[in-house]
Amino acid sequence: MKDPFTNTTQIRVRYGETDQMGYCYYGNYAQYFEVGRVEALRSLGMSYKALEEQGVMLPVSEFTVKYLAPAFYDDLLTVKTTITEIKAARIYFNYELINEKGNVISKAETTLVFVDKATMRPRHAPENFIALFEQL
Amino acid sequence: MKDPFTNTTQIRVRYGETDQMGYCYYGNYAQYFEVGRVEALRSLGMSYKALEEQGVMLPVSEFTVKYLAPAFYDDLLTVKTTITEIKAARIYFNYELINEKGNVISKAETTLVFVDKATMRPRHAPENFIALFEQL
Amino acid sequence: MKDPFTNTTQIRVRYGETDQMGYCYYGNYAQYFEVGRVEALRSLGMSYKALEEQGVMLPVSEFTVKYLAPAFYDDLLTVKTTITEIKAARIYFNYELINEKGNVISKAETTLVFVDKATMRPRHAPENFIALFEQL
Amino acid sequence: MKDPFTNTTQIRVRYGETDQMGYCYYGNYAQYFEVGRVEALRSLGMSYKALEEQGVMLPVSEFTVKYLAPAFYDDLLTVKTTITEIKAARIYFNYELINEKGNVISKAETTLVFVDKATMRPRHAPENFIALFEQL
Repeated sequence: MKDPFTNTTQIRVRYGETDQMGYCYYGNYAQYFEVGRVEALRSLGMSYKALEEQGVMLPVSEFTVKYLAPAFYDDLLTVKTTITEIKAARIYFNYELINEKGNVISKAETTLVFVDKATMRPRHAPENFIALFEQL
Repeated sequence: MKDPFTNTTQIRVRYGETDQMGYCYYGNYAQYFEVGRVEALRSLGMSYKALEEQGVMLPVSEFTVKYLAPAFYDDLLTVKTTITEIKAARIYFNYELINEKGNVISKAETTLVFVDKATMRPRHAPENFIALFEQL
Repeated sequence: MKDPFTNTTQIRVRYGETDQMGYCYYGNYAQYFEVGRVEALRSLGMSYKALEEQGVMLPVSEFTVKYLAPAFYDDLLTVKTTITEIKAARIYFNYELINEKGNVISKAETTLVFVDKATMRPRHAPENFIALFEQL
Repeated sequence: MKDPFTNTTQIRVRYGETDQMGYCYYGNYAQYFEVGRVEALRSLGMSYKALEEQGVMLPVSEFTVKYLAPAFYDDLLTVKTTITEIKAARIYFNYELINEKGNVISKAETTLVFVDKATMRPRHAPENFIALFEQL
Protein backbone atom coordinates (compact mmCIF):
# COMPACT_ATOMS: atom_id res chain seq x y z
CA MET A 1 0.00 0.00 0.00
CA LYS A 2 1.84 3.11 -1.26
CA ASP A 3 -0.59 5.82 -0.28
CA PRO A 4 -3.03 5.27 2.52
CA PHE A 5 -6.57 4.72 1.26
CA THR A 6 -9.13 7.33 2.33
CA ASN A 7 -12.92 7.26 2.06
CA THR A 8 -15.61 9.66 3.26
CA THR A 9 -19.17 8.98 4.32
CA GLN A 10 -21.85 11.05 6.04
CA ILE A 11 -23.79 10.62 9.27
CA ARG A 12 -26.54 12.76 10.73
CA VAL A 13 -26.59 13.09 14.54
CA ARG A 14 -29.79 11.50 15.88
CA TYR A 15 -31.83 12.94 18.72
CA GLY A 16 -31.21 9.87 20.84
CA GLU A 17 -27.46 10.39 20.40
CA THR A 18 -27.50 13.78 22.13
CA ASP A 19 -27.18 14.16 25.90
CA GLN A 20 -28.54 16.76 28.29
CA MET A 21 -25.54 19.03 27.63
CA GLY A 22 -26.94 19.28 24.12
CA TYR A 23 -23.85 17.57 22.71
CA CYS A 24 -23.61 14.32 20.81
CA TYR A 25 -22.68 11.95 23.66
CA TYR A 26 -18.96 11.06 23.60
CA GLY A 27 -19.72 7.34 23.62
CA ASN A 28 -21.61 7.48 20.33
CA TYR A 29 -18.57 8.43 18.26
CA ALA A 30 -17.44 4.80 18.35
CA GLN A 31 -20.47 3.92 16.18
CA TYR A 32 -19.69 6.74 13.75
CA PHE A 33 -16.11 5.54 13.28
CA GLU A 34 -17.37 1.98 12.84
CA VAL A 35 -19.67 3.21 10.05
CA GLY A 36 -16.66 5.05 8.61
CA ARG A 37 -14.49 1.94 8.40
CA VAL A 38 -17.30 -0.32 7.15
CA GLU A 39 -18.03 2.14 4.33
CA ALA A 40 -14.31 2.50 3.58
CA LEU A 41 -14.08 -1.28 3.18
CA ARG A 42 -17.30 -1.39 1.12
CA SER A 43 -15.91 1.25 -1.26
CA LEU A 44 -13.04 -1.20 -1.88
CA GLY A 45 -15.45 -4.02 -2.59
CA MET A 46 -14.92 -5.62 0.81
CA SER A 47 -18.00 -6.38 2.88
CA TYR A 48 -17.41 -6.61 6.60
CA LYS A 49 -20.51 -8.78 6.75
CA ALA A 50 -19.04 -11.21 4.21
CA LEU A 51 -15.76 -11.26 6.15
CA GLU A 52 -17.62 -12.54 9.22
CA GLU A 53 -19.46 -15.07 7.08
CA GLN A 54 -16.01 -16.33 5.97
CA GLY A 55 -15.32 -17.00 9.67
CA VAL A 56 -13.18 -13.94 10.40
CA MET A 57 -14.09 -11.41 13.08
CA LEU A 58 -12.47 -8.02 13.48
CA PRO A 59 -12.81 -6.77 17.06
CA VAL A 60 -11.31 -3.44 18.11
CA SER A 61 -8.28 -3.75 20.38
CA GLU A 62 -7.46 -0.08 20.83
CA PHE A 63 -9.39 3.15 20.38
CA THR A 64 -8.24 6.73 20.91
CA VAL A 65 -10.40 9.75 20.27
CA LYS A 66 -9.96 13.50 20.71
CA TYR A 67 -13.08 15.65 20.99
CA LEU A 68 -12.01 19.04 19.61
CA ALA A 69 -15.45 20.67 19.40
CA PRO A 70 -18.98 19.36 20.08
CA ALA A 71 -21.29 17.79 17.51
CA PHE A 72 -24.92 18.85 17.85
CA TYR A 73 -28.32 17.37 17.11
CA ASP A 74 -29.10 17.11 13.38
CA ASP A 75 -25.54 18.01 12.33
CA LEU A 76 -24.60 16.29 9.10
CA LEU A 77 -21.09 15.04 9.82
CA THR A 78 -18.49 13.81 7.36
CA VAL A 79 -16.47 10.82 8.54
CA LYS A 80 -13.13 10.70 6.76
CA THR A 81 -11.58 7.26 7.22
CA THR A 82 -8.00 6.31 6.34
CA ILE A 83 -6.63 2.77 6.34
CA THR A 84 -3.11 3.45 7.56
CA GLU A 85 -1.67 -0.06 7.75
CA ILE A 86 -2.35 -3.80 7.58
CA LYS A 87 0.31 -5.85 9.36
CA ALA A 88 0.05 -9.54 10.30
CA ALA A 89 -3.16 -9.86 12.34
CA ARG A 90 -3.81 -6.13 12.66
CA ILE A 91 -5.46 -3.35 10.65
CA TYR A 92 -5.13 0.32 11.59
CA PHE A 93 -7.59 3.10 10.79
CA ASN A 94 -7.49 6.88 11.35
CA TYR A 95 -10.60 9.06 11.35
CA GLU A 96 -11.58 12.69 11.15
CA LEU A 97 -15.06 13.95 11.88
CA ILE A 98 -15.89 17.17 10.04
CA ASN A 99 -18.99 19.32 10.60
CA GLU A 100 -21.01 21.32 8.05
CA LYS A 101 -18.84 24.42 8.60
CA GLY A 102 -15.82 22.38 7.51
CA ASN A 103 -14.32 22.20 11.00
CA VAL A 104 -12.56 19.03 12.13
CA ILE A 105 -14.37 18.37 15.40
CA SER A 106 -12.79 15.01 16.26
CA LYS A 107 -9.77 12.85 15.41
CA ALA A 108 -9.51 9.18 16.23
CA GLU A 109 -7.52 6.02 15.70
CA THR A 110 -8.43 2.34 16.05
CA THR A 111 -6.53 -0.92 15.94
CA LEU A 112 -8.51 -4.01 14.96
CA VAL A 113 -7.41 -7.64 15.14
CA PHE A 114 -8.31 -10.39 12.68
CA VAL A 115 -9.69 -13.25 14.80
CA ASP A 116 -10.59 -16.77 13.66
CA LYS A 117 -14.21 -17.37 14.67
CA ALA A 118 -13.66 -21.10 15.18
CA THR A 119 -10.56 -20.90 17.37
CA MET A 120 -11.07 -17.37 18.72
CA ARG A 121 -7.33 -16.79 18.10
CA PRO A 122 -5.72 -13.93 16.16
CA ARG A 123 -4.87 -14.85 12.58
CA HIS A 124 -3.44 -13.16 9.50
CA ALA A 125 -5.69 -11.00 7.34
CA PRO A 126 -7.51 -13.12 4.72
CA GLU A 127 -5.67 -13.37 1.40
CA ASN A 128 -8.35 -11.63 -0.68
CA PHE A 129 -8.17 -8.81 1.84
CA ILE A 130 -4.41 -8.42 1.56
CA ALA A 131 -4.48 -8.80 -2.23
CA LEU A 132 -6.94 -5.98 -2.51
CA PHE A 133 -4.81 -3.64 -0.46
CA GLU A 134 -1.68 -4.55 -2.39
CA GLN A 135 -3.40 -3.36 -5.56
CA LEU A 136 -4.03 0.08 -4.06
CA MET B 1 -49.42 -19.96 37.77
CA LYS B 2 -52.10 -18.76 40.24
CA ASP B 3 -50.84 -15.29 41.00
CA PRO B 4 -48.62 -13.50 38.56
CA PHE B 5 -44.99 -13.39 39.70
CA THR B 6 -43.56 -9.91 40.34
CA ASN B 7 -39.96 -8.84 40.92
CA THR B 8 -38.34 -5.41 41.38
CA THR B 9 -34.87 -4.23 40.44
CA GLN B 10 -33.22 -0.81 40.29
CA ILE B 11 -31.57 1.13 37.50
CA ARG B 12 -29.84 4.49 37.60
CA VAL B 13 -30.26 6.71 34.52
CA ARG B 14 -26.86 7.20 32.87
CA TYR B 15 -25.72 10.48 31.38
CA GLY B 16 -25.46 8.92 27.93
CA GLU B 17 -29.10 7.86 28.21
CA THR B 18 -30.35 11.44 28.46
CA ASP B 19 -31.16 13.55 25.41
CA GLN B 20 -30.99 17.29 24.83
CA MET B 21 -34.50 17.75 26.25
CA GLY B 22 -32.92 16.63 29.53
CA TYR B 23 -35.12 13.51 29.55
CA CYS B 24 -34.07 9.89 29.50
CA TYR B 25 -34.43 9.17 25.78
CA TYR B 26 -37.59 7.19 25.01
CA GLY B 27 -35.65 4.49 23.17
CA ASN B 28 -33.61 3.57 26.25
CA TYR B 29 -36.59 2.24 28.21
CA ALA B 30 -36.44 -0.99 26.18
CA GLN B 31 -33.10 -1.76 27.87
CA TYR B 32 -34.55 -1.02 31.31
CA PHE B 33 -37.46 -3.41 30.76
CA GLU B 34 -35.05 -6.04 29.45
CA VAL B 35 -33.03 -5.72 32.68
CA GLY B 36 -36.34 -5.99 34.56
CA ARG B 37 -37.31 -9.29 32.93
CA VAL B 38 -33.80 -10.79 33.13
CA GLU B 39 -33.65 -10.03 36.86
CA ALA B 40 -37.21 -11.38 37.33
CA LEU B 41 -36.11 -14.65 35.72
CA ARG B 42 -32.85 -14.70 37.72
CA SER B 43 -34.82 -14.30 40.97
CA LEU B 44 -36.64 -17.52 39.98
CA GLY B 45 -33.36 -19.30 39.38
CA MET B 46 -33.64 -19.01 35.59
CA SER B 47 -30.69 -17.52 33.75
CA TYR B 48 -31.52 -16.02 30.38
CA LYS B 49 -27.89 -16.62 29.45
CA ALA B 50 -28.24 -20.33 30.25
CA LEU B 51 -31.47 -20.46 28.25
CA GLU B 52 -29.58 -19.28 25.16
CA GLU B 53 -26.80 -21.78 25.85
CA GLN B 54 -29.52 -24.50 25.84
CA GLY B 55 -30.30 -23.38 22.27
CA VAL B 56 -33.40 -21.30 23.00
CA MET B 57 -33.64 -17.62 22.08
CA LEU B 58 -36.33 -15.28 23.31
CA PRO B 59 -36.78 -12.34 20.92
CA VAL B 60 -39.40 -9.65 21.58
CA SER B 61 -42.35 -9.77 19.18
CA GLU B 62 -44.40 -6.90 20.58
CA PHE B 63 -43.62 -3.93 22.81
CA THR B 64 -45.95 -1.20 24.06
CA VAL B 65 -44.86 1.59 26.36
CA LYS B 66 -46.59 4.62 27.86
CA TYR B 67 -44.43 7.52 29.03
CA LEU B 68 -46.42 9.15 31.84
CA ALA B 69 -43.70 11.47 33.18
CA PRO B 70 -40.04 11.95 32.26
CA ALA B 71 -37.09 10.19 33.87
CA PHE B 72 -34.08 12.41 34.47
CA TYR B 73 -30.33 12.00 34.68
CA ASP B 74 -29.14 10.15 37.80
CA ASP B 75 -32.69 9.13 38.82
CA LEU B 76 -32.68 5.81 40.62
CA LEU B 77 -35.63 4.01 39.03
CA THR B 78 -37.42 0.91 40.26
CA VAL B 79 -38.43 -1.52 37.53
CA LYS B 80 -41.36 -3.65 38.68
CA THR B 81 -41.70 -6.66 36.38
CA THR B 82 -44.64 -9.05 36.31
CA ILE B 83 -44.75 -12.30 34.36
CA THR B 84 -48.38 -12.31 33.33
CA GLU B 85 -48.61 -15.49 31.24
CA ILE B 86 -46.70 -18.29 29.53
CA LYS B 87 -48.66 -19.91 26.73
CA ALA B 88 -47.28 -22.27 24.08
CA ALA B 89 -44.37 -20.43 22.46
CA ARG B 90 -45.01 -17.07 24.15
CA ILE B 91 -44.21 -15.34 27.44
CA TYR B 92 -45.84 -12.07 28.47
CA PHE B 93 -44.38 -9.45 30.82
CA ASN B 94 -45.80 -6.21 32.26
CA TYR B 95 -43.62 -3.45 33.68
CA GLU B 96 -43.89 -0.34 35.79
CA LEU B 97 -41.12 2.19 36.13
CA ILE B 98 -41.23 4.09 39.43
CA ASN B 99 -39.11 7.09 40.36
CA GLU B 100 -37.64 8.06 43.73
CA LYS B 101 -40.74 10.07 44.64
CA GLY B 102 -42.81 6.89 44.24
CA ASN B 103 -44.49 8.02 41.02
CA VAL B 104 -45.18 5.49 38.28
CA ILE B 105 -43.56 7.24 35.31
CA SER B 106 -44.01 4.51 32.71
CA LYS B 107 -46.04 1.36 32.06
CA ALA B 108 -45.14 -1.22 29.46
CA GLU B 109 -45.89 -4.68 28.09
CA THR B 110 -43.84 -7.09 26.02
CA THR B 111 -44.53 -10.37 24.27
CA LEU B 112 -41.54 -12.65 23.71
CA VAL B 113 -41.37 -15.80 21.60
CA PHE B 114 -39.37 -18.94 22.39
CA VAL B 115 -37.32 -19.66 19.26
CA ASP B 116 -35.20 -22.72 18.52
CA LYS B 117 -31.70 -21.49 17.72
CA ALA B 118 -31.00 -24.35 15.32
CA THR B 119 -34.18 -24.13 13.24
CA MET B 120 -35.00 -20.46 13.92
CA ARG B 121 -38.65 -21.56 14.40
CA PRO B 122 -40.94 -20.85 17.35
CA ARG B 123 -41.11 -23.69 19.88
CA HIS B 124 -42.71 -24.38 23.24
CA ALA B 125 -41.12 -23.03 26.40
CA PRO B 126 -38.44 -25.46 27.73
CA GLU B 127 -39.78 -27.96 30.28
CA ASN B 128 -37.66 -26.74 33.21
CA PHE B 129 -39.00 -23.29 32.46
CA ILE B 130 -42.64 -24.38 32.55
CA ALA B 131 -42.10 -26.59 35.62
CA LEU B 132 -40.70 -23.65 37.52
CA PHE B 133 -43.67 -21.47 36.76
CA GLU B 134 -46.13 -24.22 37.65
CA GLN B 135 -44.62 -24.30 41.13
CA LEU B 136 -45.30 -20.62 41.66
CA MET C 1 -55.36 16.98 6.16
CA LYS C 2 -57.29 14.95 3.57
CA ASP C 3 -54.86 12.14 2.91
CA PRO C 4 -52.28 11.21 5.48
CA PHE C 5 -48.80 12.38 4.53
CA THR C 6 -46.21 9.62 3.96
CA ASN C 7 -42.45 9.88 3.58
CA THR C 8 -39.71 7.24 3.22
CA THR C 9 -36.10 7.34 4.31
CA GLN C 10 -33.36 4.72 4.58
CA ILE C 11 -31.25 3.44 7.46
CA ARG C 12 -28.48 0.88 7.47
CA VAL C 13 -28.25 -1.37 10.55
CA ARG C 14 -24.96 -0.65 12.35
CA TYR C 15 -22.81 -3.34 13.92
CA GLY C 16 -23.28 -1.81 17.36
CA GLU C 17 -27.04 -2.09 16.90
CA THR C 18 -26.96 -5.89 16.63
CA ASP C 19 -27.12 -8.15 19.66
CA GLN C 20 -25.67 -11.61 20.29
CA MET C 21 -28.73 -13.25 18.71
CA GLY C 22 -27.49 -11.62 15.49
CA TYR C 23 -30.64 -9.48 15.34
CA CYS C 24 -30.93 -5.72 15.41
CA TYR C 25 -31.69 -5.19 19.13
CA TYR C 26 -35.38 -4.45 19.72
CA GLY C 27 -34.59 -1.25 21.62
CA ASN C 28 -32.85 0.35 18.63
CA TYR C 29 -36.01 0.57 16.53
CA ALA C 30 -37.09 3.63 18.54
CA GLN C 31 -34.16 5.52 16.99
CA TYR C 32 -35.10 4.36 13.49
CA PHE C 33 -38.67 5.59 13.88
CA GLU C 34 -37.39 8.88 15.29
CA VAL C 35 -35.24 9.30 12.17
CA GLY C 36 -38.35 8.43 10.13
CA ARG C 37 -40.49 11.16 11.67
CA VAL C 38 -37.71 13.78 11.64
CA GLU C 39 -37.14 13.15 7.92
CA ALA C 40 -40.92 13.19 7.27
CA LEU C 41 -41.11 16.63 8.91
CA ARG C 42 -37.99 17.82 7.05
CA SER C 43 -39.53 16.78 3.72
CA LEU C 44 -42.40 19.16 4.59
CA GLY C 45 -39.99 21.98 5.33
CA MET C 46 -40.33 21.56 9.10
CA SER C 47 -37.14 21.19 11.09
CA TYR C 48 -37.54 19.46 14.43
CA LYS C 49 -34.39 21.28 15.52
CA ALA C 50 -35.98 24.65 14.68
CA LEU C 51 -39.14 23.63 16.51
CA GLU C 52 -37.12 23.18 19.71
CA GLU C 53 -35.35 26.48 19.12
CA GLN C 54 -38.84 28.08 18.98
CA GLY C 55 -39.36 26.74 22.51
CA VAL C 56 -41.48 23.70 21.64
CA MET C 57 -40.47 20.17 22.59
CA LEU C 58 -42.11 17.04 21.26
CA PRO C 59 -41.62 14.11 23.66
CA VAL C 60 -43.11 10.69 22.91
CA SER C 61 -46.01 9.74 25.17
CA GLU C 62 -46.86 6.36 23.69
CA PHE C 63 -45.01 3.86 21.53
CA THR C 64 -46.17 0.50 20.19
CA VAL C 65 -44.07 -1.72 17.97
CA LYS C 66 -44.55 -5.14 16.41
CA TYR C 67 -41.46 -7.09 15.38
CA LEU C 68 -42.63 -9.29 12.49
CA ALA C 69 -39.23 -10.52 11.30
CA PRO C 70 -35.67 -9.70 12.39
CA ALA C 71 -33.46 -7.01 10.91
CA PHE C 72 -29.84 -8.04 10.46
CA TYR C 73 -26.46 -6.34 10.43
CA ASP C 74 -25.84 -4.18 7.34
CA ASP C 75 -29.47 -4.46 6.15
CA LEU C 76 -30.54 -1.31 4.33
CA LEU C 77 -34.00 -0.67 5.77
CA THR C 78 -36.70 1.63 4.43
CA VAL C 79 -38.61 3.54 7.09
CA LYS C 80 -42.05 4.51 5.78
CA THR C 81 -43.52 7.19 8.05
CA THR C 82 -47.11 8.41 7.96
CA ILE C 83 -48.44 11.41 9.86
CA THR C 84 -51.90 10.15 10.73
CA GLU C 85 -53.31 13.03 12.77
CA ILE C 86 -52.60 16.32 14.54
CA LYS C 87 -55.14 17.12 17.24
CA ALA C 88 -54.77 19.78 19.95
CA ALA C 89 -51.47 19.05 21.70
CA ARG C 90 -50.83 15.71 20.00
CA ILE C 91 -49.32 14.38 16.78
CA TYR C 92 -49.66 10.76 15.68
CA PHE C 93 -47.27 8.84 13.45
CA ASN C 94 -47.39 5.32 11.96
CA TYR C 95 -44.33 3.50 10.68
CA GLU C 96 -43.40 0.51 8.58
CA LEU C 97 -39.90 -0.90 8.39
CA ILE C 98 -39.20 -2.68 5.11
CA ASN C 99 -36.11 -4.75 4.31
CA GLU C 100 -34.26 -5.12 1.01
CA LYS C 101 -36.42 -8.07 -0.03
CA GLY C 102 -39.46 -5.82 0.26
CA ASN C 103 -40.81 -7.50 3.40
CA VAL C 104 -42.46 -5.39 6.08
CA ILE C 105 -40.48 -6.49 9.14
CA SER C 106 -41.97 -4.09 11.69
CA LYS C 107 -44.99 -1.86 12.22
CA ALA C 108 -45.16 0.85 14.85
CA GLU C 109 -47.13 3.82 16.14
CA THR C 110 -46.15 6.77 18.28
CA THR C 111 -48.02 9.59 19.97
CA LEU C 112 -46.05 12.77 20.65
CA VAL C 113 -47.10 15.76 22.73
CA PHE C 114 -46.29 19.42 22.01
CA VAL C 115 -44.77 20.78 25.23
CA ASP C 116 -43.89 24.39 26.04
CA LYS C 117 -40.21 24.45 27.01
CA ALA C 118 -40.68 27.36 29.41
CA THR C 119 -43.68 26.02 31.34
CA MET C 120 -43.12 22.30 30.64
CA ARG C 121 -46.89 22.07 30.01
CA PRO C 122 -48.65 20.61 26.94
CA ARG C 123 -49.67 23.24 24.39
CA HIS C 124 -51.27 23.35 20.96
CA ALA C 125 -49.15 22.65 17.90
CA PRO C 126 -47.44 25.86 16.67
CA GLU C 127 -49.45 27.76 14.03
CA ASN C 128 -46.91 27.39 11.24
CA PHE C 129 -46.99 23.69 11.94
CA ILE C 130 -50.78 23.44 11.67
CA ALA C 131 -50.89 25.72 8.62
CA LEU C 132 -48.47 23.49 6.80
CA PHE C 133 -50.52 20.39 7.44
CA GLU C 134 -53.73 22.12 6.41
CA GLN C 135 -52.19 22.76 3.01
CA LEU C 136 -51.52 19.05 2.48
CA MET D 1 -3.78 15.16 46.38
CA LYS D 2 -1.00 12.88 47.72
CA ASP D 3 -2.31 9.50 46.64
CA PRO D 4 -4.68 9.21 43.75
CA PHE D 5 -8.24 8.48 44.84
CA THR D 6 -9.69 5.16 43.66
CA ASN D 7 -13.28 3.89 43.76
CA THR D 8 -14.91 0.71 42.48
CA THR D 9 -18.44 0.13 41.22
CA GLN D 10 -20.15 -2.73 39.41
CA ILE D 11 -21.96 -2.98 36.09
CA ARG D 12 -23.73 -5.93 34.52
CA VAL D 13 -23.49 -6.22 30.72
CA ARG D 14 -26.99 -5.84 29.24
CA TYR D 15 -28.26 -7.88 26.31
CA GLY D 16 -28.65 -4.76 24.20
CA GLU D 17 -24.98 -3.96 24.80
CA THR D 18 -23.76 -7.13 23.10
CA ASP D 19 -23.14 -7.34 19.36
CA GLN D 20 -23.40 -10.23 16.93
CA MET D 21 -19.84 -11.32 17.74
CA GLY D 22 -21.24 -12.07 21.19
CA TYR D 23 -19.00 -9.40 22.73
CA CYS D 24 -20.00 -6.29 24.60
CA TYR D 25 -19.81 -3.73 21.77
CA TYR D 26 -16.65 -1.61 22.00
CA GLY D 27 -18.64 1.62 21.92
CA ASN D 28 -20.53 0.80 25.12
CA TYR D 29 -17.43 0.95 27.33
CA ALA D 30 -17.64 4.76 27.28
CA GLN D 31 -20.87 4.51 29.29
CA TYR D 32 -19.26 2.11 31.78
CA PHE D 33 -16.36 4.48 32.40
CA GLU D 34 -18.80 7.37 32.77
CA VAL D 35 -20.65 5.40 35.45
CA GLY D 36 -17.25 4.71 37.04
CA ARG D 37 -16.33 8.38 37.31
CA VAL D 38 -19.80 9.51 38.42
CA GLU D 39 -19.76 6.93 41.22
CA ALA D 40 -16.18 7.88 42.15
CA LEU D 41 -17.29 11.51 42.53
CA ARG D 42 -20.45 10.47 44.42
CA SER D 43 -18.34 8.46 46.90
CA LEU D 44 -16.52 11.75 47.63
CA GLY D 45 -19.80 13.55 48.20
CA MET D 46 -19.69 15.25 44.80
CA SER D 47 -22.75 14.91 42.61
CA TYR D 48 -22.11 15.37 38.91
CA LYS D 49 -25.78 16.31 38.60
CA ALA D 50 -25.35 19.08 41.20
CA LEU D 51 -22.22 20.28 39.40
CA GLU D 52 -24.26 20.86 36.25
CA GLU D 53 -26.97 22.58 38.26
CA GLN D 54 -24.22 24.96 39.53
CA GLY D 55 -23.64 25.86 35.86
CA VAL D 56 -20.55 23.75 35.26
CA MET D 57 -20.39 21.08 32.54
CA LEU D 58 -17.68 18.47 32.25
CA PRO D 59 -17.40 17.21 28.67
CA VAL D 60 -14.78 14.61 27.71
CA SER D 61 -11.95 15.99 25.58
CA GLU D 62 -9.89 12.84 25.19
CA PHE D 63 -10.59 9.13 25.58
CA THR D 64 -8.24 6.17 25.13
CA VAL D 65 -9.25 2.58 25.70
CA LYS D 66 -7.50 -0.77 25.31
CA TYR D 67 -9.65 -3.87 24.91
CA LEU D 68 -7.53 -6.69 26.37
CA ALA D 69 -10.21 -9.42 26.45
CA PRO D 70 -13.92 -9.42 25.59
CA ALA D 71 -16.75 -8.76 28.03
CA PHE D 72 -19.77 -11.02 27.54
CA TYR D 73 -23.50 -10.82 28.12
CA ASP D 74 -24.49 -10.88 31.80
CA ASP D 75 -20.88 -10.49 33.02
CA LEU D 76 -20.75 -8.57 36.28
CA LEU D 77 -17.87 -6.17 35.70
CA THR D 78 -15.99 -4.13 38.27
CA VAL D 79 -15.08 -0.63 37.15
CA LYS D 80 -12.05 0.64 39.08
CA THR D 81 -11.80 4.39 38.66
CA THR D 82 -8.82 6.52 39.70
CA ILE D 83 -8.77 10.32 39.74
CA THR D 84 -5.20 10.91 38.68
CA GLU D 85 -5.03 14.72 38.52
CA ILE D 86 -6.98 17.98 38.62
CA LYS D 87 -5.14 20.84 36.97
CA ALA D 88 -6.62 24.20 36.00
CA ALA D 89 -9.64 23.42 33.81
CA ARG D 90 -8.95 19.69 33.48
CA ILE D 91 -9.60 16.50 35.43
CA TYR D 92 -7.97 13.18 34.54
CA PHE D 93 -9.36 9.71 35.24
CA ASN D 94 -7.92 6.21 34.72
CA TYR D 95 -10.06 3.10 34.60
CA GLU D 96 -9.72 -0.66 34.79
CA LEU D 97 -12.51 -3.04 33.90
CA ILE D 98 -12.26 -6.37 35.74
CA ASN D 99 -14.38 -9.45 35.06
CA GLU D 100 -15.68 -12.05 37.52
CA LYS D 101 -12.55 -14.20 37.12
CA GLY D 102 -10.49 -11.23 38.30
CA ASN D 103 -8.98 -10.51 34.88
CA VAL D 104 -8.38 -6.92 33.82
CA ILE D 105 -10.17 -6.91 30.46
CA SER D 106 -9.82 -3.21 29.64
CA LYS D 107 -7.79 -0.15 30.60
CA ALA D 108 -8.79 3.39 29.76
CA GLU D 109 -8.05 7.06 30.36
CA THR D 110 -10.17 10.17 29.94
CA THR D 111 -9.52 13.88 30.11
CA LEU D 112 -12.50 16.10 30.98
CA VAL D 113 -12.72 19.89 30.82
CA PHE D 114 -14.63 22.13 33.22
CA VAL D 115 -16.82 24.35 31.02
CA ASP D 116 -18.94 27.32 32.09
CA LYS D 117 -22.49 26.63 30.93
CA ALA D 118 -23.27 30.32 30.40
CA THR D 119 -20.20 31.25 28.36
CA MET D 120 -19.38 27.76 27.00
CA ARG D 121 -15.71 28.52 27.78
CA PRO D 122 -13.28 26.39 29.83
CA ARG D 123 -12.96 27.52 33.44
CA HIS D 124 -11.18 26.39 36.61
CA ALA D 125 -12.64 23.56 38.68
CA PRO D 126 -15.20 24.90 41.21
CA GLU D 127 -13.69 25.73 44.63
CA ASN D 128 -15.69 23.14 46.59
CA PHE D 129 -14.44 20.61 44.09
CA ILE D 130 -10.78 21.55 44.56
CA ALA D 131 -11.15 21.84 48.33
CA LEU D 132 -12.50 18.33 48.52
CA PHE D 133 -9.60 16.90 46.58
CA GLU D 134 -7.07 18.81 48.66
CA GLN D 135 -8.40 17.05 51.75
CA LEU D 136 -7.72 13.63 50.26
